[in-house]
Amino acid sequence: MVIGVGMTKFGELWNKSLRDLIVEAGLKAIADAGVTSNEIDALYGGCMSAGQFISQEHVAALIADFAGLATKKIPAIRVEAACASGAVALRQAYLAVVSGAHDIVVAGGVEKMTDVDESIATQALATASDQEWEALLGLTFPALYALIARRHMHEYGTTREHLARVAVKNHKNACLNTNAQYRSEITIEQVLKAPYVAEPLTVLDCSPISDGAAALVLCSLEKAKSLKLDTTVKILASAQASDTLALHSRSSLTTFEATVAAARQAYKQARIEPKDVDVAEVHDCFTIAEILAVEDLGFAEKGKGGKALEEGIFDLSGELPINTSGGLKACGNPLGATGIAQAVEIVNQLRGRAEKRQVKDAEIGLTHNVGGSGATCVVHIFGRC
Amino acid sequence: MVIGVGMTKFGELWNKSLRDLIVEAGLKAIADAGVTSNEIDALYGGCMSAGQFISQEHVAALIADFAGLATKKIPAIRVEAACASGAVALRQAYLAVVSGAHDIVVAGGVEKMTDVDESIATQALATASDQEWEALLGLTFPALYALIARRHMHEYGTTREHLARVAVKNHKNACLNTNAQYRSEITIEQVLKAPYVAEPLTVLDCSPISDGAAALVLCSLEKAKSLKLDTTVKILASAQASDTLALHSRSSLTTFEATVAAARQAYKQARIEPKDVDVAEVHDCFTIAEILAVEDLGFAEKGKGGKALEEGIFDLSGELPINTSGGLKACGNPLGATGIAQAVEIVNQLRGRAEKRQVKDAEIGLTHNVGGSGATCVVHIFGRC
Repeated sequence: MVIGVGMTKFGELWNKSLRDLIVEAGLKAIADAGVTSNEIDALYGGCMSAGQFISQEHVAALIADFAGLATKKIPAIRVEAACASGAVALRQAYLAVVSGAHDIVVAGGVEKMTDVDESIATQALATASDQEWEALLGLTFPALYALIARRHMHEYGTTREHLARVAVKNHKNACLNTNAQYRSEITIEQVLKAPYVAEPLTVLDCSPISDGAAALVLCSLEKAKSLKLDTTVKILASAQASDTLALHSRSSLTTFEATVAAARQAYKQARIEPKDVDVAEVHDCFTIAEILAVEDLGFAEKGKGGKALEEGIFDLSGELPINTSGGLKACGNPLGATGIAQAVEIVNQLRGRAEKRQVKDAEIGLTHNVGGSGATCVVHIFGRC
Repeated sequence: MVIGVGMTKFGELWNKSLRDLIVEAGLKAIADAGVTSNEIDALYGGCMSAGQFISQEHVAALIADFAGLATKKIPAIRVEAACASGAVALRQAYLAVVSGAHDIVVAGGVEKMTDVDESIATQALATASDQEWEALLGLTFPALYALIARRHMHEYGTTREHLARVAVKNHKNACLNTNAQYRSEITIEQVLKAPYVAEPLTVLDCSPISDGAAALVLCSLEKAKSLKLDTTVKILASAQASDTLALHSRSSLTTFEATVAAARQAYKQARIEPKDVDVAEVHDCFTIAEILAVEDLGFAEKGKGGKALEEGIFDLSGELPINTSGGLKACGNPLGATGIAQAVEIVNQLRGRAEKRQVKDAEIGLTHNVGGSGATCVVHIFGRC
């Protein structure tokens, strides 16, 4: 059960360090839950590469230290799965509560990416791919996703306009989110005419380099009964799957089999079908990634993600609003924080606290977080109760 | 329940990559367990800093990939807690089994440290300390532990000979371990006369830079009933605690409060006392660390660890043999693998498979794994059943 959420603004936050960011998000979540720091039994932190970005490993113990939790000597666990680090941390925190080891656990995520210059950040990001078979050969992440986009266009007739629509929609949503990195609308033409990063992807098809943190407070069902809670959100499913790191080892470039596997498990655990989902945050690190996601999660037929998008199904006013926060594209993508921020958005939607981007009567929400080019996929389903 | 163990030799393994090492250890453990790869439900991997050592993050998915487990799409989770990454991974794997999410889980650990030169390795290791308050000021790990050693000598009259005895004992044990990095006896005089790294610690007071991997196969009690097992080892306790990263924030330099907290919980979970332990592997990254450990775990009175060692209590033929494998000092310290290798040694001891270093009638064993200078401590207790 999620009883509290908190996050920082995402963006280029020159005046805040990694420890500042995660403590800010964590304290907001604890305050939101209405518990005291003394009641926290354990801490899980998702972080992809503080080692490469700020020369700091041992991140979870650091967070416990600077959050003032070291005095209680609680266990603090850092989890890494590239850009899916946040959701993997959430899943571990969830399993720890289910195991009975802990009652109240904080699951947080953080990344401080702007202390190094962009070329070093791009190199650090590339370490999420297969170092021996991809990164060393010069395949950066935009290049990997460009291969995927090109193949999707070839197989299904997806167009550059379809890709651009993802960015346009998510920027529009981000305008309504005060925590978002980019709060400005863009047009399809602007996306198409922006400089190429890796053709067919322009700079406006890519999520940015961001600083930020987010946190959730989880509580066992048993313990929650003793707390006075206004609204509560239950975790109906938590599923994770892996695939090969390198793209060349897969039978298809246009399906993330790990998303398909995690989604299948998650729907089974939650006993729902894709059509029961009211609102979702999916992993749009590049515009093509959102199209793959809506197809692999069963929100659109394979190959028809672009068309569904064109029809407005995934708009804020559509049948199934997707990335109401602005997504990774416009809300920002501080790697380790991203999976947790997705959950923050969904919990806010289910609690009716999503301000001007509120989806009416949202009862079931889904988050989908991807590591690398699909080697790790994590799906969580949340329900209002 | 631990149903299989495996590890590589530890050392400077120029001809093996990270993926070679962990796959070798994992396959040995799976073979030892008598299960097939297809029966593995999840993978947990401890690794401190593949990002800094070999420019590779997303390590757990990589391991699943190269172990041939990607076809089954199982979840793969990498855990980081500096030199305690291995034991934290084991604890997460244990909690996942206890939660009911999985039946058979592999918990592995790996580090490939010798692909960079020693100064870079030292820098990478320093990222386990507080980057803003320790590492940036030039405090490397030998320096941090030298401060601890100096204070222990001042407070309790511990001598340099006491420290040296840790190295002498552990090298002696390592001679009986074919997987150990250093299989040569050394004398107290040699330790004392070796070049200083950070006074009072000489190079022979320090654990080495190592490559290596280790793995365990865990199984739920329920599932274990359906397998034909000769000998089995049960995890009686799994406890983890945190402290401040920086030494200056603590009230004492000579006690690791996180060890004390984790040990207290572990003894309570296992319903035993320190005197019930028959054999233990403790974290001797520096000789002073073993003296702190035996005191903080309750095997010797505070301040009398050196004296107990002098009396031979912790020798292979003593009352409570400690670091029969050779410990981090002589078996080697490939960070992420270390905590798992400790468990491999204890499981082998409890199964009566520790060859020439077998402790007679060992029924209860303990492992103690430390991250950094004590900000993370993990204690596991194992019992023969």
